[in-house]
Amino acid sequence: MRAVTAPAPGGPEALLISDLPDPTAGPGEVVIDVVASALNRADTLQRQGFYPPPPGASEVLGLECSGRIAEVGEGVEGLSAGDEVCALLSAGGYAEKVSVPAGQVMPVPTGVDLVAAAGLPEVAATVWSNVFMVAGLQPGERLLVHGGAGGIGTFAIQLAVALGASVFATAGAPDKRELCLSLGAERAIDYREEDFVAVLEEVGGADVVLDNMGAKYLSRNVSALATEGRLVIIGMQGGAKAELDIGALLRKRGAVIATSLRSRPAAEKASICAGLVEHVWPLLADGSVRPMVGEEFRLEDVARAHQLMEDGSHTGKILLRVSP
Amino acid sequence: MRAVTAPAPGGPEALLISDLPDPTAGPGEVVIDVVASALNRADTLQRQGFYPPPPGASEVLGLECSGRIAEVGEGVEGLSAGDEVCALLSAGGYAEKVSVPAGQVMPVPTGVDLVAAAGLPEVAATVWSNVFMVAGLQPGERLLVHGGAGGIGTFAIQLAVALGASVFATAGAPDKRELCLSLGAERAIDYREEDFVAVLEEVGGADVVLDNMGAKYLSRNVSALATEGRLVIIGMQGGAKAELDIGALLRKRGAVIATSLRSRPAAEKASICAGLVEHVWPLLADGSVRPMVGEEFRLEDVARAHQLMEDGSHTGKILLRVSP
Repeated sequence: MRAVTAPAPGGPEALLISDLPDPTAGPGEVVIDVVASALNRADTLQRQGFYPPPPGASEVLGLECSGRIAEVGEGVEGLSAGDEVCALLSAGGYAEKVSVPAGQVMPVPTGVDLVAAAGLPEVAATVWSNVFMVAGLQPGERLLVHGGAGGIGTFAIQLAVALGASVFATAGAPDKRELCLSLGAERAIDYREEDFVAVLEEVGGADVVLDNMGAKYLSRNVSALATEGRLVIIGMQGGAKAELDIGALLRKRGAVIATSLRSRPAAEKASICAGLVEHVWPLLADGSVRPMVGEEFRLEDVARAHQLMEDGSHTGKILLRVSP
Repeated sequence: MRAVTAPAPGGPEALLISDLPDPTAGPGEVVIDVVASALNRADTLQRQGFYPPPPGASEVLGLECSGRIAEVGEGVEGLSAGDEVCALLSAGGYAEKVSVPAGQVMPVPTGVDLVAAAGLPEVAATVWSNVFMVAGLQPGERLLVHGGAGGIGTFAIQLAVALGASVFATAGAPDKRELCLSLGAERAIDYREEDFVAVLEEVGGADVVLDNMGAKYLSRNVSALATEGRLVIIGMQGGAKAELDIGALLRKRGAVIATSLRSRPAAEKASICAGLVEHVWPLLADGSVRPMVGEEFRLEDVARAHQLMEDGSHTGKILLRVSP
């Protein structure tokens, strides 16, 4: 099968398309004939050598895909060859075939086409697991999302609004802020011109903050929290180490949680996927949440796709079309 | 009534015993004839001017007491004059009478005498709310408790062991470590000679850390966490600001929670007290958890009681006998 790896760290040109052996379905796994994959920030970090795949995972890039089941391993129930599915992967999505634990395979949601479904598992699982399962966002609470126009941001805004929360989102460019508002955000904050802490303090603080900046925003995120607020850090684009004002956190009885989806054990991923199918897929089916698709590239053009992601000007998910 | 305040910040000599008006029972409150109160670290901080009482609370010191109900306010059910009770207070325990929301009043547990019961509400509520309600310690998990021989430490060891967790405790002096082991701790760590991080890493890390040191231990506490571990900071004896390694926390998918009992709203305190009566009082009744009583002082000797607490050599709770 054709597959994309990054044998030597580097820029987009470091990506290598080569022929690798087809994967097989071990016990509890299925093999998917991949129709499309999608890009994640972690892919560019992995390519640069900063984010090695977890132990035992494939060296092939790609954390999600859609396609049709090609092979069903021993002990797998409820999935059959030919089923149209999407899947949350530990690795291996940028390839014609990928093997994955059956618990991480989900039906394509009603109303979503097979190619667009490739870009759903990561954002949906990230938002559902962190904002709802870990931070426990409740209806009527306020969510602050940084990078509101990105793949995770656009999904977080829609899902939180659909489930009854009010959402404040940060974004830079005017069209990105417009997008946040069109998805239901109560307020889109221009982080270049406005102080998001002041905006949140005015309304009583954020019950949950979903952050991808890490160190750079730690102090201000704690300041933006409401009493009993929860800051969930899922990325460190602004660095990994910063001073924490424990006194400020204590006065709010707040929590700082740092987490990642990829490193979680298969059983937790399966539980997250089951939650998605139960709670989130119906909102995709009725149109209250829509997958945000940006540009689509062919597998051969994966380097250009990475370049676009690194330029930072895109909105929505960048898809990688693997087979027709 | 006689009551203790600290009108000007200072050492133990700054404590003033004076006559103040008796409190009355507002709607939903009771007045207790106080038999005994108990000391908490927060009392010495408040005396020094570092920890003002929450808005609306009495200036009289004291976060807990035992005694007999003297007066029952409008709308209070299930409590009658003469009942022997103990109570979690926002303030006011160092006095002959105190008014308190009925939800924070609990029966004296079976098998515990009325005076000793004065020292139960704060430690029991602190340990139950933080280790079990906030951090969700589960049977089979590992708890690391700093200051294992103190009031909170001794209660945390006993309660966690009784509920099926294994406990690692830090303490300085040999007799304090001996006390931790006698209460069921698997390991008592001499923090002067041993590295608690190394001890915990050897066994796979702590699922929950209960910390009263704040800044001084932040980095090492994060290092001592297991995957998905929760650090709960309830004191800042080692300072309020320190560098947080977000990357280290993210690799563990860990949480840092800073919280305090005193500032919580009455409804949360009532829910904590209800949890205590349901889950913890039976363990006091059957002897699997014992209140640790240290020295007992008369109200007139409150300054000496504060001095003893600040010397740091005591174990168990320091009680203040208010009336016979």
